[in-house]
Amino acid sequence: MTLTLERLNSASVQEAAALLDGLYEHSPWIAQAAIGQRPFRSLAHLKHAMARLVEEAGEERQLALLRAHPELAGKAMVGKSLTAESTREQDNAGLTNCTPAEFDQIQRLNADYNAKFGFPFILAVRGPRGTGLSRAEIIETFERRLANPVDFERAEGLRNVHRIAEIRLNDKFGVAPTQGEQVWDQLERLSQFSDPGYKDKGQLTVTYLTDAHRSASARIEQDMKEAGFDEVSVDAVGNVVGVYQGASAQAKRLLTGSHYDTVRNGGKYDGRLGIYVPMACVRALAKAKRRLPYGLEVIAFAEEEGQRYKATFLGSGALIGAFDPAWLDQRDADGVSMREAMHHAGLPGTVEAIAALRREPARYLGFVEVHIEQGPVLNELHLPLGAVTSINGGVRYLCEVMGMASHAGTTPMNRRRDAALAVAELALFVEQRAARDGDSVGTIGILNVPGGSTNVVPGRCQFTLDLRAPNDRQRDALVDDVLAQLKAICERRGLRFTCEQTMRAAAAPSHPQWQARWERAIEALGVPLHRMPSGAGHDAMKLHEVMPQAMLFVRGQNSGISHNPLESTTADDIDLAVQAFSDLLEQLAGETR
Amino acid sequence: MTLTLERLNSASVQEAAALLDGLYEHSPWIAQAAIGQRPFRSLAHLKHAMARLVEEAGEERQLALLRAHPELAGKAMVGKSLTAESTREQDNAGLTNCTPAEFDQIQRLNADYNAKFGFPFILAVRGPRGTGLSRAEIIETFERRLANPVDFERAEGLRNVHRIAEIRLNDKFGVAPTQGEQVWDQLERLSQFSDPGYKDKGQLTVTYLTDAHRSASARIEQDMKEAGFDEVSVDAVGNVVGVYQGASAQAKRLLTGSHYDTVRNGGKYDGRLGIYVPMACVRALAKAKRRLPYGLEVIAFAEEEGQRYKATFLGSGALIGAFDPAWLDQRDADGVSMREAMHHAGLPGTVEAIAALRREPARYLGFVEVHIEQGPVLNELHLPLGAVTSINGGVRYLCEVMGMASHAGTTPMNRRRDAALAVAELALFVEQRAARDGDSVGTIGILNVPGGSTNVVPGRCQFTLDLRAPNDRQRDALVDDVLAQLKAICERRGLRFTCEQTMRAAAAPSHPQWQARWERAIEALGVPLHRMPSGAGHDAMKLHEVMPQAMLFVRGQNSGISHNPLESTTADDIDLAVQAFSDLLEQLAGETR
Repeated sequence: MTLTLERLNSASVQEAAALLDGLYEHSPWIAQAAIGQRPFRSLAHLKHAMARLVEEAGEERQLALLRAHPELAGKAMVGKSLTAESTREQDNAGLTNCTPAEFDQIQRLNADYNAKFGFPFILAVRGPRGTGLSRAEIIETFERRLANPVDFERAEGLRNVHRIAEIRLNDKFGVAPTQGEQVWDQLERLSQFSDPGYKDKGQLTVTYLTDAHRSASARIEQDMKEAGFDEVSVDAVGNVVGVYQGASAQAKRLLTGSHYDTVRNGGKYDGRLGIYVPMACVRALAKAKRRLPYGLEVIAFAEEEGQRYKATFLGSGALIGAFDPAWLDQRDADGVSMREAMHHAGLPGTVEAIAALRREPARYLGFVEVHIEQGPVLNELHLPLGAVTSINGGVRYLCEVMGMASHAGTTPMNRRRDAALAVAELALFVEQRAARDGDSVGTIGILNVPGGSTNVVPGRCQFTLDLRAPNDRQRDALVDDVLAQLKAICERRGLRFTCEQTMRAAAAPSHPQWQARWERAIEALGVPLHRMPSGAGHDAMKLHEVMPQAMLFVRGQNSGISHNPLESTTADDIDLAVQAFSDLLEQLAGETR
Repeated sequence: MTLTLERLNSASVQEAAALLDGLYEHSPWIAQAAIGQRPFRSLAHLKHAMARLVEEAGEERQLALLRAHPELAGKAMVGKSLTAESTREQDNAGLTNCTPAEFDQIQRLNADYNAKFGFPFILAVRGPRGTGLSRAEIIETFERRLANPVDFERAEGLRNVHRIAEIRLNDKFGVAPTQGEQVWDQLERLSQFSDPGYKDKGQLTVTYLTDAHRSASARIEQDMKEAGFDEVSVDAVGNVVGVYQGASAQAKRLLTGSHYDTVRNGGKYDGRLGIYVPMACVRALAKAKRRLPYGLEVIAFAEEEGQRYKATFLGSGALIGAFDPAWLDQRDADGVSMREAMHHAGLPGTVEAIAALRREPARYLGFVEVHIEQGPVLNELHLPLGAVTSINGGVRYLCEVMGMASHAGTTPMNRRRDAALAVAELALFVEQRAARDGDSVGTIGILNVPGGSTNVVPGRCQFTLDLRAPNDRQRDALVDDVLAQLKAICERRGLRFTCEQTMRAAAAPSHPQWQARWERAIEALGVPLHRMPSGAGHDAMKLHEVMPQAMLFVRGQNSGISHNPLESTTADDIDLAVQAFSDLLEQLAGETR
């Protein structure tokens, strides 16, 4: 008899505990405590509840849970094939058939890991897709995590414990995140295209209108066609536009999408997830031969990252008439102008053709965008999805403080004009001032004493400021306070400073109604709602200028690292994103019917 | 009738005021107030008293004093020779015969200077030797001082006002610092020798056993012989050793001296002053055909700075048996071994010959060293000389804090592992912790976020620590506190750190009896006594290991800048150093008689 949520919810406490047995190694208390929180609205709800219980159980029980896990290294075998081994996911750790060198390395890593952390290395070896990591991936992860701070790695170990439990729970319930798996596989296939010099290193880099970029665009076109879009085309800036008509051709459209270009050596989900999640929804609609009362226009934006040319948000910008004709004459590092690149890609490369891409806002209901979070918040909160409240407005400065270089031995402390100490003071001010807002962020990312020597009091210190907040007023207040503090510090310390603004972007608060739709979609999945600003910029910022917009964030693994090959998300989380997107479509259908 | 100190001290207030008239531009109140502090024990005493009065008069009167000075720029003339101009020092500002370009530059500098500071640019144009600066030197100084912070430049302007008053006072009293002038001229001549590649740029660089180094050694030998030393020789490491015998050949000797090598693009006084000041005393003794009850051994150490080879204090180290034989095989940047360099210089280059340089401490009374301060303290206090209490012990570390690089936009403030913020906290702790001791110093001289980006939270931060204190216990307490703080900060912030000790030098506290001799010598000059640690290392550190030592510091101009061509001191201050050294010799003669 298949285990269902209904059965779990209605079972006796004893029976329910038996049903959930074995999710967490030798820690039945977790499932037992979770049972007290029934009914569960979804498996995602149950998973989160258990993770929260572990979170709240305190360090001692968490360590006990970690220590209950067998050592992964104990499963490594040299050149042996599996014979009578169990086929259960964690038992077959993917570490059979090691070379002697790999085996030795794993034992060494294991010894170092235990010595450093005092608990065994735990890794959900079935990985984000659920089908298993390679030996190389496992060893690489082992090495990387060995470098983590102790408390951080304890949390990372627990997250892997929860991922193992998630996979076991799916197995118990006989369910699979099939839509998520399909998107995951599609993104994996799409990542085969990479610019020369990166592909051979196994790195993903797809910059504007390179051959790899055009191959990616062709693949997206093909995927859209296969999904059942009515019209699929590539526009004058290289955006791939798929339209799934509504009940009538005159029906307004919902606009959605994200970018398919990448940063150098980037991740597979940044941008692309926001193309393939709605594509999965269209596939389901088309398969069911269902038409919504409105049309659905999914755009794979050709350019957002500004890597090849100094033009960011080129793809989404073209839709709002923000394409600067001067960009056509910009040249890349090899001297190829954007116009030439367009011609090479078979695009007209004319100002007129690009201007024609401008959308009439009245024809659209609004814009929504699904995006991987690119931050640690959802990962740490054990939440698969988050509702975006605003895309933060940001300002950047390049600054320098100038004091007097002097002899570190002979200049008494009270006679110094140390430029670096002023920046140190400012950095700590930025930290506490941004934290005071709660949702502002402030960063000194570049910090350098040029030509510094051990025995010379810093006469100069260069640094950058990156200040962001969910609305412009909050951001400007932050900026004002930080700059006033810089001035006050320098005056007090007898220093001079320069401060050059290098970037200023307005905040794009989510449209309340559209944000509310995402919130309802999240809650419909039984997952606790978490509202959060987006610290990074997104294509939605551009559409924000002409129509209402709101974004959905999907949890990233590995602390939400992004712009990095470690960027990752699970098929389970993607599946929930597809479900949330479908829910939003249904809400909208109900409203516009 | 020549003005004498006796006359000034015994004159009526009114007469005394008349005698001192014109020292300070339109500010008779300074001399008048000083008169109230009679009797003066020396002109140095009077000069210091007036500078202190200005110091205590407050900002308003200081600005009035500065503004009373005519603009130097008003004295610039294009291509005109002096005709009926006054020959008084400040009136003939050295700016006649300007080229039109120089004239324009001076007017521009003047306008910028007035706009920035609100008072005229004041420069003692007769310079440190008293004979006048060149136009190029004046313009260069103008440019440099324009970049100073406002309060700093006000003090620098006042220091020039005091230097002008000093020169006027000397003129009034018909005295000249002749011994100081001679040393100044000798050091100027010695500075003509400079290593290839530096000499053509007008820079002073004399590294171990280069041709320039050997020329300098030959010049010192010759100067010693001319001064009247009984024996002058070059030893096996290139030290120039001059002996002025005492009353008997068996008499113990006082050892003194300093180094004649320089850093790259260094100053003319660092080290060398400590050779030529005692040389001036020997000249006076020889001229008077006087023998002290003890011998005087003045050593010009061949190497202290460790520029050509990784061996510092080579010259003084050889005297205490601290020459490491392995150094002979070290190679310079051109691949020349030290042994080869020694042979090239006509030195034996054998371990035996070097070992023979070791001195028998029982044959010596002790070691004294005169050195330019290399710091701002005496300059700011308007004091020509200072008694060194100790050569600070120092420890250096090369450190790195490791956190987690993350997206500056998407990582909330409370989820960061910002490596740079930890270093910022530490830097401020070092500042206040060192200041708490009063005479400890602590510096983070190298500070860098490697590969930092504006929009990335620093995952790593590299920095150095340079911690010094007048005694090892105080230094070690400082080091312990700083390292404990680093550990605490990193633990609190969830970061890791590495900390590698790169240098550790024991403190060399002055021998109390010897320090007391310097103190009495300073007080005998009528100059207020200031005791201070030496932040930099000196040859005396080496001799400290085998015999009592104490050092005398001489004020440096330009905030005491050193290891820099701007290193400077006046003939007046050098003259006082010669007088103080003579006083110490007399004290010793009195004691040993």
